[in-house]
Amino acid sequence: NTVLYTVSAKVQELYVYEINERDRGSPAYLRLSQKPVNSLGDLLPFSNKVYSGDLEKRLGITAGISMLIQHVPEKNGDRFEAIYSFYFGDYGHISVQGAYLTYEDTYLAVTGGSGIFEGVYGQVKLHQIVFPSKLFYTFYLKGIHDLPTELTGKPVAPSPSVEPSPDAKATKPHATIPNFTN
Amino acid sequence: NTVLYTVSAKVQELYVYEINERDRGSPAYLRLSQKPVNSLGDLLPFSNKVYSGDLEKRLGITAGISMLIQHVPEKNGDRFEAIYSFYFGDYGHISVQGAYLTYEDTYLAVTGGSGIFEGVYGQVKLHQIVFPSKLFYTFYLKGIHDLPTELTGKPVAPSPSVEPSPDAKATKPHATIPNFTN
Amino acid sequence: NTVLYTVSAKVQELYVYEINERDRGSPAYLRLSQKPVNSLGDLLPFSNKVYSGDLEKRLGITAGISMLIQHVPEKNGDRFEAIYSFYFGDYGHISVQGAYLTYEDTYLAVTGGSGIFEGVYGQVKLHQIVFPSKLFYTFYLKGIHDLPTELTGKPVAPSPSVEPSPDAKATKPHATIPNFTN
Repeated sequence: NTVLYTVSAKVQELYVYEINERDRGSPAYLRLSQKPVNSLGDLLPFSNKVYSGDLEKRLGITAGISMLIQHVPEKNGDRFEAIYSFYFGDYGHISVQGAYLTYEDTYLAVTGGSGIFEGVYGQVKLHQIVFPSKLFYTFYLKGIHDLPTELTGKPVAPSPSVEPSPDAKATKPHATIPNFTN
Repeated sequence: NTVLYTVSAKVQELYVYEINERDRGSPAYLRLSQKPVNSLGDLLPFSNKVYSGDLEKRLGITAGISMLIQHVPEKNGDRFEAIYSFYFGDYGHISVQGAYLTYEDTYLAVTGGSGIFEGVYGQVKLHQIVFPSKLFYTFYLKGIHDLPTELTGKPVAPSPSVEPSPDAKATKPHATIPNFTN
Repeated sequence: NTVLYTVSAKVQELYVYEINERDRGSPAYLRLSQKPVNSLGDLLPFSNKVYSGDLEKRLGITAGISMLIQHVPEKNGDRFEAIYSFYFGDYGHISVQGAYLTYEDTYLAVTGGSGIFEGVYGQVKLHQIVFPSKLFYTFYLKGIHDLPTELTGKPVAPSPSVEPSPDAKATKPHATIPNFTN
């Protein structure tokens, strides 16, 4: 009852920026711990904007939740457990789970996806540029077909000054993907 | 230490209905945004009943959480990020994550499973029939053995008037699966 | 664009203990249902310590959330939906989702991982020893390379009296893994 299973074995890298432009009411800091310092019990639902790695296209949004696990005084930062998805308009979505540390890069698990990302697995590197509003992600994706070329432009090297192109920011038709998620 | 890996490569479709019969206290609408309109920060843990696509068998329950991401005035609806599982008694469970929109169909990622669903991947189409109490799902499952025949009956076409068979609703033994989740 | 895909097809078992040593403020019981009895709406973010199955090494922590789905009076217990990760220092992490029942063992889905657990899938058996502070897990992992030997020691049989070795509890260097998660 088994057959040979064939998939694209290559790892495909996908670069995206996540930017909080302060216009989505995100994050919602729910201080349910009722403690003065960030503590286990605090929940942060969030949703930010997602741009292509070359910053030429608005792709969509992130959506999900970060849960505060631990304040880390010696790093002057926090550990979160993050569970969220990246939405890419008509292309579908990728769901991820793992640690978000405010003081160093982390790798999260890619837990699944839809559309062109159906059956995806792998991991994603989260690199924080400006806390907490500008992040750069490198996905290492397996189990899917070749990505469309508009998702695979050469990424702009992450730095605090990077910004999406004005057209992408203004979601002009040539600077978005089909039915970009908003 | 590697060998050729063999699995069933075919996609298996699995149809189920999720019905809120208003007897489980679900959903719990936690208006943590403290805003008058549905907003990021609101959380909705939920658990509803699951029936086979032919509506002849009670299978189990759903269990998880929907997080309000965005109110969408032009659609008179809402975007949620949903993270939940479908429980199928002794057969095990399937976990999913993705978007739930109150105004159109979506595809969620199948992120994993247990029992006969161990190692499952793929996606699931969520079709809303009656908001928010009657939903029809089409799973597209890969990586698992053939589904048992009692899960693969011909589905009743979704419509607002569909109802589980009286025996399934009453969880009579012949109208449930082994140790159906309740 | 497809090639034969080869992975270790064998199932690897990984045994770990999760122990709540009452020093992490965990769990945070958020009684958002505002009901006197445990009810849908209650959320329990948590983070506990993780030790190797032989109890000789401190590995890291768990981090995530349990959501109360249902109080089960006839079992004098509760059903939770649990979404969390196991952190293993420099080795990476494993994310899981499924049911946690206070009155019987369950199997959760392995939804993904990072580091040496990149691309992992399978399931994990959750066995409760002392509610809710001492649990024993048996992971059945696929899709990854051979586990490092310091993770594969012979497990101590679970019983209420088991304790980590004093050196592991004290996180002495020889009784931890590289950069164990704390």
